[in-house]
Amino acid sequence: MSDGPVRDDGMTAQRLGEITDELLASYDHDLPERVTLPNQAKVVAVIDECRRLLFPGYYAEEPLPESSCRFKVGTWLCELYSDLTQLIWRAFAHEDPRRDTDDVMAEARRIAADFVACLPHIRMALKLDAQAALDGDPAAGSLEEVILTYPGFEAITVHRIAHWLYDAEVPYIPRAMAEHAHMRTGIDLHPGARIGQRFFIDHGTGVVIGETTEIGDDVKIYQGVTLGALSVHRRFAGAKRHPTLEDGVVIYAGATVLGGETVIGRNAVIGGNVWLTASVPPDTTVIESEPTLDYHRRPGK
Amino acid sequence: MSDGPVRDDGMTAQRLGEITDELLASYDHDLPERVTLPNQAKVVAVIDECRRLLFPGYYAEEPLPESSCRFKVGTWLCELYSDLTQLIWRAFAHEDPRRDTDDVMAEARRIAADFVACLPHIRMALKLDAQAALDGDPAAGSLEEVILTYPGFEAITVHRIAHWLYDAEVPYIPRAMAEHAHMRTGIDLHPGARIGQRFFIDHGTGVVIGETTEIGDDVKIYQGVTLGALSVHRRFAGAKRHPTLEDGVVIYAGATVLGGETVIGRNAVIGGNVWLTASVPPDTTVIESEPTLDYHRRPGK
Amino acid sequence: MSDGPVRDDGMTAQRLGEITDELLASYDHDLPERVTLPNQAKVVAVIDECRRLLFPGYYAEEPLPESSCRFKVGTWLCELYSDLTQLIWRAFAHEDPRRDTDDVMAEARRIAADFVACLPHIRMALKLDAQAALDGDPAAGSLEEVILTYPGFEAITVHRIAHWLYDAEVPYIPRAMAEHAHMRTGIDLHPGARIGQRFFIDHGTGVVIGETTEIGDDVKIYQGVTLGALSVHRRFAGAKRHPTLEDGVVIYAGATVLGGETVIGRNAVIGGNVWLTASVPPDTTVIESEPTLDYHRRPGK
Repeated sequence: MSDGPVRDDGMTAQRLGEITDELLASYDHDLPERVTLPNQAKVVAVIDECRRLLFPGYYAEEPLPESSCRFKVGTWLCELYSDLTQLIWRAFAHEDPRRDTDDVMAEARRIAADFVACLPHIRMALKLDAQAALDGDPAAGSLEEVILTYPGFEAITVHRIAHWLYDAEVPYIPRAMAEHAHMRTGIDLHPGARIGQRFFIDHGTGVVIGETTEIGDDVKIYQGVTLGALSVHRRFAGAKRHPTLEDGVVIYAGATVLGGETVIGRNAVIGGNVWLTASVPPDTTVIESEPTLDYHRRPGK
Repeated sequence: MSDGPVRDDGMTAQRLGEITDELLASYDHDLPERVTLPNQAKVVAVIDECRRLLFPGYYAEEPLPESSCRFKVGTWLCELYSDLTQLIWRAFAHEDPRRDTDDVMAEARRIAADFVACLPHIRMALKLDAQAALDGDPAAGSLEEVILTYPGFEAITVHRIAHWLYDAEVPYIPRAMAEHAHMRTGIDLHPGARIGQRFFIDHGTGVVIGETTEIGDDVKIYQGVTLGALSVHRRFAGAKRHPTLEDGVVIYAGATVLGGETVIGRNAVIGGNVWLTASVPPDTTVIESEPTLDYHRRPGK
Repeated sequence: MSDGPVRDDGMTAQRLGEITDELLASYDHDLPERVTLPNQAKVVAVIDECRRLLFPGYYAEEPLPESSCRFKVGTWLCELYSDLTQLIWRAFAHEDPRRDTDDVMAEARRIAADFVACLPHIRMALKLDAQAALDGDPAAGSLEEVILTYPGFEAITVHRIAHWLYDAEVPYIPRAMAEHAHMRTGIDLHPGARIGQRFFIDHGTGVVIGETTEIGDDVKIYQGVTLGALSVHRRFAGAKRHPTLEDGVVIYAGATVLGGETVIGRNAVIGGNVWLTASVPPDTTVIESEPTLDYHRRPGK
């Protein structure tokens, strides 16, 4: 059976013209300005280019022989520098179309060059993150498994890139990067969050970490944890709305910690499903009091 | 090192023939009927075609100059009309292979034409949804950021398309569209749910909204919220099994509201993690009584 | 407006050379060994090849006429056998680069041949899973809808493939397959978990099922359920750390069951959000005692 006939008699040329005009009218002038919007596909391409430079053994399409390795890596760096410059330029140009094109391009070039120069440092931080995952999960077989397959590692990789660009005050791109990782991993990590060394998110689905969260070193977080705001009024935009986690904190699955003044002290452990809106002293374990469970035995069949 | 040799001595031609025959036998006649099944890739293509027409400034591959804009949009409309007609035709043809092909095609054309004519209205509804997200989230920088990156906005975009087709009683396609959005956003929004104006889902991962849910205007929902059924027996198929949320309701993260007779009244606020199986009056805030937390101080190191 | 000029004056050749050298230094010899790492794109290709063989009516790109059907399926089997052999060979070769290449290839061929021979059995198991979903969800319209669109069905499909390879002690590949399904469905199902017949996960986002979980027949699980470990110290790697669910168990949304010695008895029902670290006898329903809710009526406006 073929795909069947499509005749156009269900839709006359006149009707089509009318619908077209209705749609055009509804666009109300927001059409032409948007042609410089940074394209999501290009955002993803830049993430992939970063990943290839950070972990060439995992993401390069072909082997890298000793002899040509330096040329390959240099070429990749040039490509990333060029693509990232374009992306940043489009983001700035869209944010303020009145700015001088040459000025914007110069700023984009400067930021892209600084970013590229930071890649070795980002790589160092990510190697420590991968090791923390291997140390923290008995199901992890090897560093390779962590780097290739752990969603928590994918999320922190994108975050360390996006957060750098957020600090450089690049608009749109950091959030677009974070939402790409969110879509793939189920981990919603706002690019504004400040995260220390050796960070590990296990499983990850449903994790939400807000814009002004501050996280120390050696912190471990499980699936479904929210580090969120107590209030969502727009007048709090810019203020510290999300909690602070000091070094060595562990937060088990489904726990919720809210509020910009909430501080979880050094080495504190927050149990599964705990709901916290107040600070916790260091070296403290917080668990919910054993909830009362009702057991109903049904008559055997 | 090359990819290494593959010789076929691990698998003889005879063994291969046996396995092929076993597989063929296991297909038990469900093979040929299914060749008209609507293809998931084509479902995704139609979603993308809709999105390009709804937000051309965001999804068009190239700039749309004033002069040629009307031709471009008209061409896209024709393409969508044609592709959607094919998709609906395949869905109906698969559902009831005994129906007359011309009848099915005429119905598919009528539905596709009606849908295309509704695009300006869907666009208006989505612009209000985007504005609600901007108003409701202090971390949102601009409408552009919402439209380009918010998973909640992606979910409601696909829902407003899928729900239209669900109301038109098109089989398979609405659910396939919804599951595509579910996969990308972690938001499981059944195409049957009726949703009012200015709807906002923040973060979104883990949200489940059931088939017979009814949601008023200006409702806001956070990650991990379930609007579900109390019973899952198949005999309740078709009945109202999921709750009703009146205008202005807010439901915070992880809350669960169950049951077809449960009504959350106008402007009620349901706190995080609350578990509800009964109605709530208007203008009421429901929170779980402060759970008892146990704090254990560990000896300092 | 064009994409704008990119001049290279933001980045001198000398600076680029320095950054390249810094990056190369940071790779610290982990570069060349990794060129044989199994590629994620090839893992996904093998999953897709399996799916086409298991459900040709759903995934074949073109109709399969009676006459040529046997040739087509035979050809697909050859392709899968060859691609899977390569993948397994790369995984073993990477795990232990000192092993003899011919030995590794012979083992890869043997495992791939055994796997291909098991496809009819995997298909039988999956048809029962699809039927369980149709029986267990009033919103399910047909078997076709389940097979084409249900994330829980996608997760169990990949799991039955990945678990077979896990049992055959293939490194990397099973976990890479499982994480691909996790990314698409939000269901984190470790390939080590042992799962009986007629298994159904509804909605699914946020489900976590650990490596040493054992699940009987006719078990049903909802979104956000965790079957996890009580301790995550690496010294427990290899031990049974995750629970056992006997036949007919139902676990509602958001419940958490922890511990390798925790056994949920035959036909037990675990209510939403229940937190369990102890065994439950057969034919028992466990629900959380009605939590106290506080209702605050706000003055009407």
